[in-house]
Amino acid sequence: MRKKKSARQIFGINLRRHREELRISQEDLAEKADLHRTYIGSVERGERNVSIDNMERLAAAVGRTIGELLDEPTP
Amino acid sequence: MRKKKSARQIFGINLRRHREELRISQEDLAEKADLHRTYIGSVERGERNVSIDNMERLAAAVGRTIGELLDEPTP
Repeated sequence: MRKKKSARQIFGINLRRHREELRISQEDLAEKADLHRTYIGSVERGERNVSIDNMERLAAAVGRTIGELLDEPTP
Repeated sequence: MRKKKSARQIFGINLRRHREELRISQEDLAEKADLHRTYIGSVERGERNVSIDNMERLAAAVGRTIGELLDEPTP
């Protein structure tokens, strides 16, 4: 049985997936969300305890809602 | 036209609503989520830039998903 993913892991996986669907780089996304590129990378890897304000900016930057970025990713 | 609510405002309104539906106090919720009572109050008022880890604990403590706590509240 696999360990249930944390919200921050799910958010990171989905953020990366949606960014890749848009064919934009971490740097492009950073610019759109007015955040730093290395920060985007750490959020995508689930390393950051990202705040709700930044979740909102990141979701807007990939054209999704925060809720959509928290849906359990399909394999 | 009213200004669109921020994610943190929506989260706070919904958290309070679900807590009240459960008829538990801020203190009870604080204990369930292992957070401080005054912190719960400030999250409910939309004053806190709450982190994803704490959103996850708060959502679990009221038996909801983070996504449910981010649904636009009905008036």
